Parts: sequence; C-alpha cells; structure tokens
Amino acid sequence: MSVTCELCDANAGDVIVSTEQLRVILVDDANYPGFCRVIWNAHVKEMTDLSDSDKNTFMQAVWKVEAAIRAVMQPHKMNVASLGNMVPHLHWHLIPRYTDDAHFPNPIWAAARSDKQDQFGLDIRRARIPQLQQTIISNFSS
Amino acid sequence: MSVTCELCDANAGDVIVSTEQLRVILVDDANYPGFCRVIWNAHVKEMTDLSDSDKNTFMQAVWKVEAAIRAVMQPHKMNVASLGNMVPHLHWHLIPRYTDDAHFPNPIWAAARSDKQDQFGLDIRRARIPQLQQTIISNFSS
Repeated sequence: MSVTCELCDANAGDVIVSTEQLRVILVDDANYPGFCRVIWNAHVKEMTDLSDSDKNTFMQAVWKVEAAIRAVMQPHKMNVASLGNMVPHLHWHLIPRYTDDAHFPNPIWAAARSDKQDQFGLDIRRARIPQLQQTIISNFSS
Repeated sequence: MSVTCELCDANAGDVIVSTEQLRVILVDDANYPGFCRVIWNAHVKEMTDLSDSDKNTFMQAVWKVEAAIRAVMQPHKMNVASLGNMVPHLHWHLIPRYTDDAHFPNPIWAAARSDKQDQFGLDIRRARIPQLQQTIISNFSS
C-alpha cells in the first residue's frame, strides 16, 4: 500500500462488488452512465507484475462487468482501458460508448464534440443504472 | 470479414509476429516509439464475443508484448486499451509512456502538452526498436 494512493482506499467510490482481490465501482460521470472500474485491491502498477493466476482472475472480472454493461446498457461499442498514468495502481476502465455520446467516435479523453449531446438518450441510459448494478452483482454470484 | 474494415487486411502495418489467430504490429507514431498493437485476425467486435479460450489466447499475447515493451523500452507506465470506435474489429493498443512524452500524464488521445518534448529521450527510445522487435519475437517463441 502506498500512503499517497487514492485507490488504496477501498472505501472510495460506489462499490458494486467487492472480493478479496478486487472491487467493481460505478464511476460518477454525468456524460457516461454505466462507466465502471475494476480495481485490483493490492497496490500493483502493471498487469505483467501480477502472477498468471491473478491476471486471469482480474480479466475474468473485467469480462463479467463488460458482459453486464453490454446486456443492460446496449452500447454501440465497449471501450476497455488500463492507463494509470496519474494513479499507478492497477484499474480497468469499462466505458459503454454510443454514437450520440459526448466524444464519439473519439476516446473519452479527447476533446468533447462541439455539437449537443442527445439528452433523451442520456436519460434513458441513466435510468438503467439500478439494473446494471443488479446484473453485475448477479454475474459475480454465478 | 467486413469489406470495409481496414484491420481485416492482414498485410497492413509492420507485422512483428503473426499466428493463426492474431498478429502483433509496430505502430508508426513519431511520438511513441514502441507503441504496438495486437490485432485479432477474425472480424470480431468485442472481447465478450470471443470464447473463453480465445479471450485467454488474446490476453496472453497482449501480456507477452507488454513484457517485451517493459523489458526493452523501460517505460514509466504502460497504457493498454481496446477502444475500436472507429474500427470495430478487436485490437489492443500497448503504449509505453514516459514522464517526458508528448501527453504525459494524460492519455495519448488527449490534447498534447504545450511544453517541448525531450528530443534526446525520444531518440534513445527510437534506437531500441530493433531490440524490441527481437524480444517480442522471442517471447512468442518460448
């Protein structure tokens, strides 16, 4: 554990699933309802610092979350990324993308589109969050 | 195969490793020597469209490339991402990041830094490309 690492604080964020090795949180991003993160609990910097078994455990969790997001949020495309330049503690971003979202087709880290986002589509997606949380929990129970 | 998909053309890019299921290419990006892509040969959109066995094969390849990049390029941080908004054909970006690179600590898709990049560091990294290619080939032979 690093004394300066925000991801070492297991209580940060809206935790949907928590296991001994990792946790799944719902990211609070107004433009991206359904954006989730899977965070490895131990303070590890890179995937290739993990054992093969731990890599597999981590990625299996990522795919369970991706499957839940796709089933409930019906995105046009999934974006999956492990960056960690700011916080070098392993975590995967899982972002459901839509042709009418704030950055499409660019990555969400690029400049936002100048045209107005479809508020109706965004409202529909926000309404699906409770079902997403239940589906993620269900995917980790099976 | 999609008739309009550039990644269905197996001859595109500087191919370092090619297997029946996937290929590893070196990305031609002046700011990011060592940037590699692992591309699934079949035209598949999302990781959760693959079988468990294929997911595992794909990710094992990604980790072999990450291990080679880390060993040779000595990055400050690895960035690993599967986006595909423009080209919805599964591929992983593996990008070695440095504190003096063109976008650090932001993702490479964000606006570039306004301060000048360290040309000396970039030249050193470019000189390591032949060794990187050999190490990737070696990691897939073992």
